[in-house]
Amino acid sequence: MKLQPLADRILVKRLAEETKTKGGIIIPDTAKEKPAEGEIVAVGPGRNAEDGTKIALEVKVGDRVLFGKYSGTEVKIEGEEYLIMREDDVLGIVQ
Amino acid sequence: MKLQPLADRILVKRLAEETKTKGGIIIPDTAKEKPAEGEIVAVGPGRNAEDGTKIALEVKVGDRVLFGKYSGTEVKIEGEEYLIMREDDVLGIVQ
Amino acid sequence: MKLQPLADRILVKRLAEETKTKGGIIIPDTAKEKPAEGEIVAVGPGRNAEDGTKIALEVKVGDRVLFGKYSGTEVKIEGEEYLIMREDDVLGIVQ
Amino acid sequence: MKLQPLADRILVKRLAEETKTKGGIIIPDTAKEKPAEGEIVAVGPGRNAEDGTKIALEVKVGDRVLFGKYSGTEVKIEGEEYLIMREDDVLGIVQ
Amino acid sequence: MKLQPLADRILVKRLAEETKTKGGIIIPDTAKEKPAEGEIVAVGPGRNAEDGTKIALEVKVGDRVLFGKYSGTEVKIEGEEYLIMREDDVLGIVQ
Amino acid sequence: MKLQPLADRILVKRLAEETKTKGGIIIPDTAKEKPAEGEIVAVGPGRNAEDGTKIALEVKVGDRVLFGKYSGTEVKIEGEEYLIMREDDVLGIVQ
Amino acid sequence: MKLQPLADRILVKRLAEETKTKGGIIIPDTAKEKPAEGEIVAVGPGRNAEDGTKIALEVKVGDRVLFGKYSGTEVKIEGEEYLIMREDDVLGIVQ
Repeated sequence: MKLQPLADRILVKRLAEETKTKGGIIIPDTAKEKPAEGEIVAVGPGRNAEDGTKIALEVKVGDRVLFGKYSGTEVKIEGEEYLIMREDDVLGIVQ
Repeated sequence: MKLQPLADRILVKRLAEETKTKGGIIIPDTAKEKPAEGEIVAVGPGRNAEDGTKIALEVKVGDRVLFGKYSGTEVKIEGEEYLIMREDDVLGIVQ
Repeated sequence: MKLQPLADRILVKRLAEETKTKGGIIIPDTAKEKPAEGEIVAVGPGRNAEDGTKIALEVKVGDRVLFGKYSGTEVKIEGEEYLIMREDDVLGIVQ
Repeated sequence: MKLQPLADRILVKRLAEETKTKGGIIIPDTAKEKPAEGEIVAVGPGRNAEDGTKIALEVKVGDRVLFGKYSGTEVKIEGEEYLIMREDDVLGIVQ
Repeated sequence: MKLQPLADRILVKRLAEETKTKGGIIIPDTAKEKPAEGEIVAVGPGRNAEDGTKIALEVKVGDRVLFGKYSGTEVKIEGEEYLIMREDDVLGIVQ
Repeated sequence: MKLQPLADRILVKRLAEETKTKGGIIIPDTAKEKPAEGEIVAVGPGRNAEDGTKIALEVKVGDRVLFGKYSGTEVKIEGEEYLIMREDDVLGIVQ
Repeated sequence: MKLQPLADRILVKRLAEETKTKGGIIIPDTAKEKPAEGEIVAVGPGRNAEDGTKIALEVKVGDRVLFGKYSGTEVKIEGEEYLIMREDDVLGIVQ
């Protein structure tokens, strides 16, 4: 069982933000909004352009991404917590 | 008797949100807005693009979908409660 | 004598909302905004697309439609009350 | 001497709203915004589309129209009061 | 020496608004925003459409125009006061 | 050393606004926002249209321009103060 | 390890703003929002136009840029602080 996001939405598994992540990104502890890190587990088919064509996403399943701390909507699937957000909420891909 | 939604609207039968649903999705009990689950019972013919063509919906009758808890407008048809919402209010399809 | 709506506007005769309507739709009595039911008595020629072409309406004279309770502007024609609204205010067609 | 409206604007002579008009439209006396009735005395050449072409108006000089009570800007020409408004402020044509 | 307006801007010499103007327009003294009258002394080359082409102005130097009382920005050139405004602020041309 | 503005931005050297400028423009002393005068010292390559083409600027280096008093962002280059603003902030070219 | 920005975003290493920078730009100490200076260390593939094509960025890795003081989102990569922002936040390139 899985969840298929619509349009330009993606399903993200948030990574623990208390520790230094595998990717080596350390989230600074300041007053500004801080980005969070996660792994993409499902992607939508893409955004609909005005002329009806699909614009494919730049991100893909397996990408580790940074996104705004308060981006997306939380959902639990088979006991695991995920986030559904739009691709535009993704700041960058960790490589 | 039924209700035919216009444009990119869909008619959704909300599923009980107190229990673990058949699809296995458990809605987490947090302060953030939580998505609800439902089954699509009717879909509109699609959104009108700027050039007048129809952009068909991605969802179809029978799809089980997640949507924002406060999305849509309530309506009763022959004693049953439904929600009319836009396809864009749908976060993803449960598979 | 009649009133010809402009562009994507329609003229609607509101149906009594206190009782169960002929179409079998019962409006639930909740705190949320509730849709109202009416019959279309006149339609405009359609919305102007950016390139100047007309986009014809999906609804037609005689359709029974649901719309937001506070949609439209009231007007009296020969003693009868009507509502002028945009097609986008219509949630669905009762069939 | 006259006033030539620009783009999609029209010049309207408001009709007395206290009495039942010639067209038979009676404005209901409720708390909602009520439309007013007038006759078009001049029309602009049309709105400019994004590609520079003109989109001709649907209304023409002589049409009796309904419009929002607070639509338009008042102006006096040779002692007579008129309203300048956009065609989109017109709700419908009285026939 | 003169001022060349950019894009769809025009330079207007405001006419005295206390007296009945040559054009015969009398500004009514009500609480609503009242239009003012002026003569166009310079026009821009036109607005840039999305595809980069110019959309020429409808008004030209010498036109007497009505515009919203608070439209535009005041500027003095060689001791004379003018207004710089966008063509869209013009309500109509006095003929 | 210089600063190359991006897109439709320009770099402007503000002229003293206390005295009558060379161009003969006297800024009136009223409560309304008053335009300021400056000389363009650098221009960007132009705005990106929706289809990816560049829309060249109407102004060029050396033009004396009027702009809104609070337009732009201040920056110091080698001890001299400049303003970076968008071309749309320019009201007109002094000739 | 690095961070690949999405779409029209860029990754910027902020330069110390207390001293006169190498590029010779001195940030004035006024009440207005002051621009900051930085060096671009990574750029996204470009913004998606409405028709699905990419619009390449004007800036490139190595460019020294000015940007609004509060632009972008802070992130730490391997102990170093960076800013992720959109290209539109860049005011100009220091040359």
